[in-house]
Amino acid sequence: MLLNHKEVQQASKARRHAFAPEFQRGLYEAIFRRRDIREFIPDPVPDEVLARVLVAAHHAASVGFTQPWDFVVVRDLERRREVMRVFEEERRKNAERFAGQRKKKFLSLKLEGILDAPLNLIVTCEPDRFGPGVLGKVSIAEVEVYSTCLAVGNLWLAARAEGLGVGWVSIVRNDALRRIFSIPCNIIPVAYLCIGYTESFPERPLLESAEWASRLPPRSLLHFDSWDGRSDDEGHALATAMQSSAIWRSIFTDEPA
Amino acid sequence: MLLNHKEVQQASKARRHAFAPEFQRGLYEAIFRRRDIREFIPDPVPDEVLARVLVAAHHAASVGFTQPWDFVVVRDLERRREVMRVFEEERRKNAERFAGQRKKKFLSLKLEGILDAPLNLIVTCEPDRFGPGVLGKVSIAEVEVYSTCLAVGNLWLAARAEGLGVGWVSIVRNDALRRIFSIPCNIIPVAYLCIGYTESFPERPLLESAEWASRLPPRSLLHFDSWDGRSDDEGHALATAMQSSAIWRSIFTDEPA
Repeated sequence: MLLNHKEVQQASKARRHAFAPEFQRGLYEAIFRRRDIREFIPDPVPDEVLARVLVAAHHAASVGFTQPWDFVVVRDLERRREVMRVFEEERRKNAERFAGQRKKKFLSLKLEGILDAPLNLIVTCEPDRFGPGVLGKVSIAEVEVYSTCLAVGNLWLAARAEGLGVGWVSIVRNDALRRIFSIPCNIIPVAYLCIGYTESFPERPLLESAEWASRLPPRSLLHFDSWDGRSDDEGHALATAMQSSAIWRSIFTDEPA
Repeated sequence: MLLNHKEVQQASKARRHAFAPEFQRGLYEAIFRRRDIREFIPDPVPDEVLARVLVAAHHAASVGFTQPWDFVVVRDLERRREVMRVFEEERRKNAERFAGQRKKKFLSLKLEGILDAPLNLIVTCEPDRFGPGVLGKVSIAEVEVYSTCLAVGNLWLAARAEGLGVGWVSIVRNDALRRIFSIPCNIIPVAYLCIGYTESFPERPLLESAEWASRLPPRSLLHFDSWDGRSDDEGHALATAMQSSAIWRSIFTDEPA
């Protein structure tokens, strides 16, 4: 489709808040190179680096600007050993969900760096932090937990840009985390993270290269105007674009996407 | 603290996966300049741009690599008008949580761009997409919803880098969204988003400049080794770093942070 002069002007006006390509690329590099890391080297994380990563988390979106998160920085080895015991119990339970070769593969995977990482971090959520009235919270009760997940997302991307690995350990129990870290019962431990430098960020996600699961084709995830709306021309163009390397050429100028 | 030669070598080895400063800055710009946008201009979002933003969402971390998300792209105006009616009902309920000046301020705020934005997008979550066994899902039932929030976070940052505004409308009801968009009952509508170009990205969050709430001091959110652990020297240094502009000098080289 060719645009006339006025349309081109209008389009560039609309996009005037877009970042320069090298800044766009910085963000997309973080998104595509982020991995769930379970192998760490013991080098300490400098305060300056950890501070940037935590500030990034603190600048996540939050419902009603409630900023419902807290950060528990964990270095104490004794408490981490307790978390490790809970992880081992839960891992055995998780293994029971699988059978045969799949169970064997599950048990062969290293799923945490609780003791190897120089630090662990618990990101928690305090619902109703400023009282029961929350702008944006009516029928959907979990909105503050959603905000806390956004903080974890920011933290994970910032860590990647800083060269720091992050692994999210979901094979734990919140009652155990509350006991081990004296977390009050109204506070929800949302994410238990292992953080530290790592020898390498693998090219592909661990569970993909281990053939545990495959990346889903984007086309299968798209719906148009309703759940069963799949097939119009516009939808086809978008699905095709999502699988085309051409959409990245303006940003990744020096290499194949 | 001065490092000896070997320590300096070791530190730079640990950090060798860090991005170049301009790429780091691209990520941090997206994080700090992202806003919840409720004012849109009608210019359409090109497929190429929307495709990049959706690919970014699809590359979020997910528990057990389940990729539990779907994306419902909504342009249909009649359905959006129905969402708008639900929003208005829920907004009135939300207003009842506040009294006096606070209620007045709540009612004065524009909280959505459902009809103004050129497109709406529903990001949903399908728990147990590949059956009841999920690697990483044991005691914490909501792990797939957490993953879906990470996808929303990626999408929101990518949109910002593309110059696109995103607003998350949480003042809706999931039963209504399921009805309007024929979403099956096992699918959770996690985020209802308005997406489009915008005249401006405000310097500060809307709810901050409207004096609805203030940014919390980072120090108040930090705990060390346990919930009541607040006061050691190391913790003090980290909290101080989080509030110092000096930590940004190596990344934002040409301007004050």
